[in-house]
Amino acid sequence: MNNFTFQNPVKIIFGKGSIAELPNNMYKGEKIMLTYGGGSIKKNGVYDQVKKALEGFTIIEFGGIEPNPDFDTLMKAVKICREEGVGFLLAVGGGSVIDGTKLIAAAVDFKGDPWDILAKGADFEEALPLASVLTMPATGSEMNCNAVISRRATKEKFAFGSPKVYPVFSILDPEVVYSIPKRQKANGLADSFIHVFEQYLTDDIDTPVQDRWAEGVFKTIIETAPKVLVDNPPYNACANYMWAATCALNFFICPGVNQDWSTHMIGHELTALCGLDHGVTLSIVLPGTMRVMRKEKKAKLLMFAKNVWGITSGSDDEIIDKVIDTTEKFLQSLGIKTRLSDYNIGQDIVDEIYNRFKTRGVELGEHGIVTPEKAKAILEDRL
Amino acid sequence: MNNFTFQNPVKIIFGKGSIAELPNNMYKGEKIMLTYGGGSIKKNGVYDQVKKALEGFTIIEFGGIEPNPDFDTLMKAVKICREEGVGFLLAVGGGSVIDGTKLIAAAVDFKGDPWDILAKGADFEEALPLASVLTMPATGSEMNCNAVISRRATKEKFAFGSPKVYPVFSILDPEVVYSIPKRQKANGLADSFIHVFEQYLTDDIDTPVQDRWAEGVFKTIIETAPKVLVDNPPYNACANYMWAATCALNFFICPGVNQDWSTHMIGHELTALCGLDHGVTLSIVLPGTMRVMRKEKKAKLLMFAKNVWGITSGSDDEIIDKVIDTTEKFLQSLGIKTRLSDYNIGQDIVDEIYNRFKTRGVELGEHGIVTPEKAKAILEDRL
Repeated sequence: MNNFTFQNPVKIIFGKGSIAELPNNMYKGEKIMLTYGGGSIKKNGVYDQVKKALEGFTIIEFGGIEPNPDFDTLMKAVKICREEGVGFLLAVGGGSVIDGTKLIAAAVDFKGDPWDILAKGADFEEALPLASVLTMPATGSEMNCNAVISRRATKEKFAFGSPKVYPVFSILDPEVVYSIPKRQKANGLADSFIHVFEQYLTDDIDTPVQDRWAEGVFKTIIETAPKVLVDNPPYNACANYMWAATCALNFFICPGVNQDWSTHMIGHELTALCGLDHGVTLSIVLPGTMRVMRKEKKAKLLMFAKNVWGITSGSDDEIIDKVIDTTEKFLQSLGIKTRLSDYNIGQDIVDEIYNRFKTRGVELGEHGIVTPEKAKAILEDRL
Repeated sequence: MNNFTFQNPVKIIFGKGSIAELPNNMYKGEKIMLTYGGGSIKKNGVYDQVKKALEGFTIIEFGGIEPNPDFDTLMKAVKICREEGVGFLLAVGGGSVIDGTKLIAAAVDFKGDPWDILAKGADFEEALPLASVLTMPATGSEMNCNAVISRRATKEKFAFGSPKVYPVFSILDPEVVYSIPKRQKANGLADSFIHVFEQYLTDDIDTPVQDRWAEGVFKTIIETAPKVLVDNPPYNACANYMWAATCALNFFICPGVNQDWSTHMIGHELTALCGLDHGVTLSIVLPGTMRVMRKEKKAKLLMFAKNVWGITSGSDDEIIDKVIDTTEKFLQSLGIKTRLSDYNIGQDIVDEIYNRFKTRGVELGEHGIVTPEKAKAILEDRL
């Protein structure tokens, strides 16, 4: 096991009716910015529940944060925060709204160009406190300190992370899942599934608690997916999906292990260049990562095959072929197409991504083993 | 899944050489009380490492905290804290030292009789900040907000818990395991193993992430135990044992599930009345809890048999008999004797414990199903 430091201070308020707990957890006396997305919260009743819970608080609304939140949109919110003296941010939405709100929090008191936080990893001295009401289980943003931000103007998508942008609290009411469209649930399931991969499918350095916890989240997502993807899913399925998605990226499964994240970084480029949904990009890239990096990840691929899918018969190579195929079929069972050609994406985009990585000198994956050449091979496997 | 609130703010600094991180994490400018136990830290080098790391800090030492820390001993530390204006407590030791330090933290500014915190569950407004350097993986106290305190004068042992006594940080260097005597390692393994039971062996309310995480800790303890119990255990085994013991009681496996804790409460009485080691009392009681409560815990006993031990053949009753036997044999494999008669404890002590529970009106276990009569039956099963 590697040495590690772990601290996750987020307070989780989980369960049926938990939005009513909002006022007991809010900072009193601060001007609050309520951030949200395209307005689905006004259709599914969450907006009304939040507004009712926050009666008596001073609230400025900022809606319209896009999926893959746009830097320029978020800078408008930063301007309002500065002008109005906002002291607390409440994100009501999915990962995009929460991620976007983290950037707002970091940028309000930042002296330079906030884009540097993303493009140059610039440090920021303080951030506004933020909290969330989660409406879409997927990214784990409600219980971590990471965010991914897009800039449509330059077709770029970058991540940043800092303990300063952990939500103070997050409210997780599984009943929000009832009204999520099937396509978004599929994306959320794929996203959380592949978050676990990034922290598991590396080298085996003898970390049995972490590995088994990762496998526990894998298995829960696999068995919960068909229960959640129907109309009117049962409450328990929604609750297990929601908690699994949070546990997929709240750092509980990764202390002391090596991590990959190359599938995500390659996927981010597909979103930036072609506008594909995040969960879709991951579902396209993952089988390629598994195949191209099969030697380096052999021990974990065999562990995954045995402990998650019960695949044990055949030679090591046959088992690995089988588990890559099984994993891709699982992603397809969510209703996601897993080939670049399904989205009319061809070699030109592959070359563009290769050139971007080459120019930036990017080396991805555990120990930098996913070179630009490997990333190209991964994408070519998915044509 | 039940509704739940979860928040665990403890910072964990884990790994080889991590004691050197102490000064970077200490509150500056406060007078520090360094608490420890019977002096084993002076033999194994931890004391020297801590003192070296804290050069330049103002330190008052308070040694001599017993295994099963005694209330009267701890009150002496409270008196010194008040007189000297101590502002920060650093526990260097195992669960007993950390638990005792939590009571010191809670008692220093408490207006009434601090025993009320234990015997009457009295609330306390504030606690001194505390941190720990763990020298003995077992209780999980380094990453939770609970403590168990004994009072030898009245042969009583009670628990208390409050978010106010979470350690600010805990340093976990697995190298401390090298010098722990075998009997203490056995107790620690049994203790952490049975912590998982208390949060798992209840009713099955469809919580797959939590159940699988519990099973992951079970399996890690089972396979790590023989590696750790030798002289000069390998570093990885020490690290996995240490992290498993922390994860057995840091609340990561129990959000939204029902909990039992009857084995602990019955075990506490055996320690209070007969002076048995904590891990020993749990190892004695657990097979009785499994047998006497087999109907109520049937679903989870079968899940445990299948997922942890791979026992699936036979009728349900045969499987349950087999898994109780297997579990008791595992505890015996640690070198722990698991019958009351092994310790010359007979029916009179069983009757005394029954009378104590009856007088206090205690109903233990999930939903209070372990009545004083059931507790008596559990103990009689272990004669």
